[in-house]
Amino acid sequence: MDDRARTDARARDEADPLARRRDAFDLPEDLIYLDGNSLGPLTHASRARVGAALNAQWGRGLVGSWNTAGWMDLPDRVGDRIAPLIGAGPGQVVALDTLTLVLAKAVLAALDLRPERSTVLTDVANFHTDRYILDAVATRAGRPIRVRALPREDLAAHLDDTVALVMLTHVDFRTGEMLDLAGVTAQVHAAGALMVWDLAHSTGAVPVDLRGADADFAAGCTYKYLNGGPGAPAFLWVAPRWQGVAANPLPGWLGHARPFAFEPAFTAAPGVRGFVTSTPSILALAALDGALDAFDGVDLAVLRAKSLALSDEAIALVDERLPGQLDLVTPREHARRGSQVSWRHPDAYGIVQALIARGVVGDFRAPDIARFGFAPLFVRHVDVVDFVAHLVAVLEGGEHRDARYALHQAVT
Amino acid sequence: MDDRARTDARARDEADPLARRRDAFDLPEDLIYLDGNSLGPLTHASRARVGAALNAQWGRGLVGSWNTAGWMDLPDRVGDRIAPLIGAGPGQVVALDTLTLVLAKAVLAALDLRPERSTVLTDVANFHTDRYILDAVATRAGRPIRVRALPREDLAAHLDDTVALVMLTHVDFRTGEMLDLAGVTAQVHAAGALMVWDLAHSTGAVPVDLRGADADFAAGCTYKYLNGGPGAPAFLWVAPRWQGVAANPLPGWLGHARPFAFEPAFTAAPGVRGFVTSTPSILALAALDGALDAFDGVDLAVLRAKSLALSDEAIALVDERLPGQLDLVTPREHARRGSQVSWRHPDAYGIVQALIARGVVGDFRAPDIARFGFAPLFVRHVDVVDFVAHLVAVLEGGEHRDARYALHQAVT
Repeated sequence: MDDRARTDARARDEADPLARRRDAFDLPEDLIYLDGNSLGPLTHASRARVGAALNAQWGRGLVGSWNTAGWMDLPDRVGDRIAPLIGAGPGQVVALDTLTLVLAKAVLAALDLRPERSTVLTDVANFHTDRYILDAVATRAGRPIRVRALPREDLAAHLDDTVALVMLTHVDFRTGEMLDLAGVTAQVHAAGALMVWDLAHSTGAVPVDLRGADADFAAGCTYKYLNGGPGAPAFLWVAPRWQGVAANPLPGWLGHARPFAFEPAFTAAPGVRGFVTSTPSILALAALDGALDAFDGVDLAVLRAKSLALSDEAIALVDERLPGQLDLVTPREHARRGSQVSWRHPDAYGIVQALIARGVVGDFRAPDIARFGFAPLFVRHVDVVDFVAHLVAVLEGGEHRDARYALHQAVT
Repeated sequence: MDDRARTDARARDEADPLARRRDAFDLPEDLIYLDGNSLGPLTHASRARVGAALNAQWGRGLVGSWNTAGWMDLPDRVGDRIAPLIGAGPGQVVALDTLTLVLAKAVLAALDLRPERSTVLTDVANFHTDRYILDAVATRAGRPIRVRALPREDLAAHLDDTVALVMLTHVDFRTGEMLDLAGVTAQVHAAGALMVWDLAHSTGAVPVDLRGADADFAAGCTYKYLNGGPGAPAFLWVAPRWQGVAANPLPGWLGHARPFAFEPAFTAAPGVRGFVTSTPSILALAALDGALDAFDGVDLAVLRAKSLALSDEAIALVDERLPGQLDLVTPREHARRGSQVSWRHPDAYGIVQALIARGVVGDFRAPDIARFGFAPLFVRHVDVVDFVAHLVAVLEGGEHRDARYALHQAVT
């Protein structure tokens, strides 16, 4: 049966218009890497770009590379390459800082735009760091702000005229549930509030249309589906209507209109550049710049179709081969599914560890979720068949209860 | 005369206990690099460490490297390597973010510790981004804060009981003047205020003794004299007495005591780690980690002695060879001098450009300062002699007025 399933999967791989994209990545042929939603793999282009930044630019060009190698506007150029993946235009996206800090900037800027309002709403299941930073910046708004973390289905009922902004993550890090970007944004706007999106688990895996949704601010990370490398810079999108209006709450000289005039007061550079604070890591930006090559010319509809096909296949095979053994927590409806599939199991940690020992990399999220990402640029249809075959072997052989896989904390 | 001076300088280089440290750097033999105070050069160890992080760790280890390659505590380990250079102990320093953001964290944390006070003092000549961020965070303290930027000689007279904190840069980026770290800190403490130091232009070039000075917070950058690479992470030092007391105003999951327990509220990790927000660039940290190898076993008193010898020689040679032509703005007194020498000249920009064309790299600071850094790990005594010979040739030949060197904005 596995043979038949593998043969069918190989045929789908041969017909896959994205199949050759895997060649961009430095991945062993036999590795089944279903953790691109945590850390995307190295691309050959990232290696080359970091090498050039390190040797030719830093090593030989030294300080002159700020001009000659275009380091000064690298955050903008990389932002412009991310823009088409999230439905943004040129000059609207910049790569900078780390995601939680970028969210702090976006949320404070948004609060400043709604000075008469006092409530921030978020999802109680939002990623924890988003909740920490919301609680923290709420004390920095210059007025009392109440942060309410609610079940997502209750948010609409709390959209009253005290709400300054809503901050949500587009795809849930645990369950892979995807929210309706345009629908939620419209609801929030109808209440006179602003919408701040965290795109950590969607950018590069599902089409995102920020302008179509008419959102206000968005931030995301680039080390997941964009494959920018461990701790790669985050990005910020500011809606065109807020550019020149919204102010960076943590300004610095690299966001100044004239950074080398050394003026005593801050004047923001035009566009989203004003949100850059101080000198970004060029090595980190170079790796990200290289990684984005893998997206050149990719049709996001094709990307999405493959992502859904892969996750459909995984869900169907687990339904068929392991009926009743794993509790699917990812929505079956396409419109509500991101690019990962998560199952609940009391021994989820052991399952993930036993799979890793077999060359199938997924990850665990406490207390009981096994999470598998289907990054369409490098995951193959045959990987899905092999993943489920290994999963069956693990569960049938009781490998997940092996003492070697005793629970300890896993890492993003 | 140059021959005699070069022979003497070569003898000093042969006797220099730090002479072999230049071998750690990937610098062409004939390059006279006097801009390590802007961007330190590439070390062979940085190249190797980035290569390992890129290929073995990211490429092969993938997401598992967060555990197996020690990525999680890399900010702490790198911080512990910076600590001895600034008179700090283990667990007191962490590498993170960019300098202006780290200053924002330190200043807000300090303001929270002096809730009954309403004034922040700084130097009117402080680096501009320090002034931008002070002005910005003063609006985020939860109470009205007045920022006063004064000539540094007037600060003492304004140390009244409304002053919450004083924020100063240890070595002036323009003039190279060094402030009295311990003396100023004691004055500030006598007024009941806290002291936040920016060590951008001192770390790695002059001995800094934060514990001896009994300061409160310090931040610095690592891409200058520490040679960490373009946009390398900043660092933060928090005095032991404030650890567990001062709170990160921009908290995130990587500073949480239990990041993978995904708790809904923030609880800071012990020590300075609580000031880390979200995922740092591992490539950037790896480059910095490698660069710090060049400081292994260096006696800071020896480093300082060489730095002063180099800058003394430069000042004396310019005095002798170009009397009255350049206006020295760096203090002649050792106790007030950092590791750079700056001269004022109406054609400073042209002078710097003409020198660069001759293979002597310094930099220009608007409107009229030519600035030369003497990084003792790789600058040679003979470089000083050759630098001044080139400077004499530029000025005597009128090269600084050449149209090729017409003024445009210089960088960093």
